Amino acid sequence: MTALFPTGVFCAALTPFNADLSPDHDLFSAHCKRLLDDGCTGIAMLGTTGEANSLSSRERKSLLEAVLKSGVAPSRLLPGTGVAAFTETIELTKHALAHGVQTVVMLPPFYYKGVSDDGIVAAYSAVIESVADPRLRVVLYHIPQMSQVPLSVDVVDRLRRRFPETVVGIKDSSGDFANMSAIVERFPGFSVLAGADPLMLPLLQKGGAGCITATSNLVASDLATVFHGFADQAQRSQVAAAQERIVVVRNAVSRFAQMASLKTLLAKRYGHDGWKRLRPPLIPLSAQEAAELTASFAV
Amino acid sequence: MTALFPTGVFCAALTPFNADLSPDHDLFSAHCKRLLDDGCTGIAMLGTTGEANSLSSRERKSLLEAVLKSGVAPSRLLPGTGVAAFTETIELTKHALAHGVQTVVMLPPFYYKGVSDDGIVAAYSAVIESVADPRLRVVLYHIPQMSQVPLSVDVVDRLRRRFPETVVGIKDSSGDFANMSAIVERFPGFSVLAGADPLMLPLLQKGGAGCITATSNLVASDLATVFHGFADQAQRSQVAAAQERIVVVRNAVSRFAQMASLKTLLAKRYGHDGWKRLRPPLIPLSAQEAAELTASFAV
Repeated sequence: MTALFPTGVFCAALTPFNADLSPDHDLFSAHCKRLLDDGCTGIAMLGTTGEANSLSSRERKSLLEAVLKSGVAPSRLLPGTGVAAFTETIELTKHALAHGVQTVVMLPPFYYKGVSDDGIVAAYSAVIESVADPRLRVVLYHIPQMSQVPLSVDVVDRLRRRFPETVVGIKDSSGDFANMSAIVERFPGFSVLAGADPLMLPLLQKGGAGCITATSNLVASDLATVFHGFADQAQRSQVAAAQERIVVVRNAVSRFAQMASLKTLLAKRYGHDGWKRLRPPLIPLSAQEAAELTASFAV
Repeated sequence: MTALFPTGVFCAALTPFNADLSPDHDLFSAHCKRLLDDGCTGIAMLGTTGEANSLSSRERKSLLEAVLKSGVAPSRLLPGTGVAAFTETIELTKHALAHGVQTVVMLPPFYYKGVSDDGIVAAYSAVIESVADPRLRVVLYHIPQMSQVPLSVDVVDRLRRRFPETVVGIKDSSGDFANMSAIVERFPGFSVLAGADPLMLPLLQKGGAGCITATSNLVASDLATVFHGFADQAQRSQVAAAQERIVVVRNAVSRFAQMASLKTLLAKRYGHDGWKRLRPPLIPLSAQEAAELTASFAV
């Protein structure tokens, strides 16, 4: 049984590709296991960082099935299932549940812009009511700079009231700490997960639930140190040192394109070019950018 | 054999829904036939106005097959096939070609924002090279206010040089007449199709190829009058009267949400509630808005 409200360090796992740009299932599964070994609570696969919206529904399902088949427990996976078409969101969510996964991270439909709160609530409601499975746990996904469809505090409130056993949290990738804090304060117990690594610590101190982040592909153990030790005075110096490393790495991968930077560093760590590849419209770092980045620190 | 460069009045057809929000194939097919009878050159189905991005790939394919089965010639259809995942864009484009449709309207991948021109060119190139069918004709789709991924003139130039027999036009829905005019002037022969009904006439006068528009769901015959008569002094008054009606209807449906307004008026014209329904995140007009709109003029 999965806990109602997810808490912990969840990695927004990157997706490695074969030379033909199909997802490399084996490389990805091995990465997921390494992340769990490094202390991640779970893997928020198939998100923005995982280039999920550059994958077809079939490719998304195959990748999830491959990770499960490799031996990762379904309770450790929080796949993204929110796409532009609510009927496809339903299909992907049912697929996850059918494979034992209960918690999904769900974008609002993101093609139309300037949509009303009523429209966003209607879209999420249509999905949850159509899936109609009491096991389902939905983490809402607020990433306005990418989706261009922000989730207002009022939308969060309406959805959690309407589906109190299902809508259990939000991933806030806005970078707006005031927004995350406001949701934590207004809805005690509701899981608020920071979408930016450096913000997990201050959010935990406010009562936040953890993070779903990209830099955790590289600094999972540091995030785990912060998550498990932040409230313990005896671990103060370890937590501070871990937080410092998190900030350094986050800054380093934010200098050039973030996902390409993270992939460049993972390719170095694992010694495998599959990590360097991105699907269009994203493109790898230039040779010079990659050289500057990899020279700057050890992974 | 479909002409290399599409010219004419193409309707960005609305999609009617059954009570369960599945596409109403029969109602849609009948509407397509009416549009062709009213003088449309073709139907740009499954676009923004058609709520295509709220439909799954399976639903998109079924709707295209249904229209073809109803007797509409594949040469009269220009379906949208561009989605967020290029592998799914490939699949939808191959499906259209397999059913005899040659010309498609293609959005760039629209999830990631702030992507480079290199990334956009890479995405379109990957699709065209993977489809690898000399019959294919692609109309690029520039609708920055919705996709948030603008197509620069340089992107258009690179794609038409790289695929001169395939990349044959652009639908410019930016509303920016200077941008449309610049593309017409810079690339003679390349089809520039206005995405806003009132702009077709001035664009034709500059050498534009026609339009792909939403209001044509209601004023197809007026657009046909303008398209066929704009250069003929003898038709001057008919063209002016048609253009005036186009502007009046366009302004009327822009007062409230445009697609919901168009659907409200089509529901009145056809006497069928299936036209009133929209898929979330879009929602119908309020009863008061609908009453105000339908009272304002006859359809």
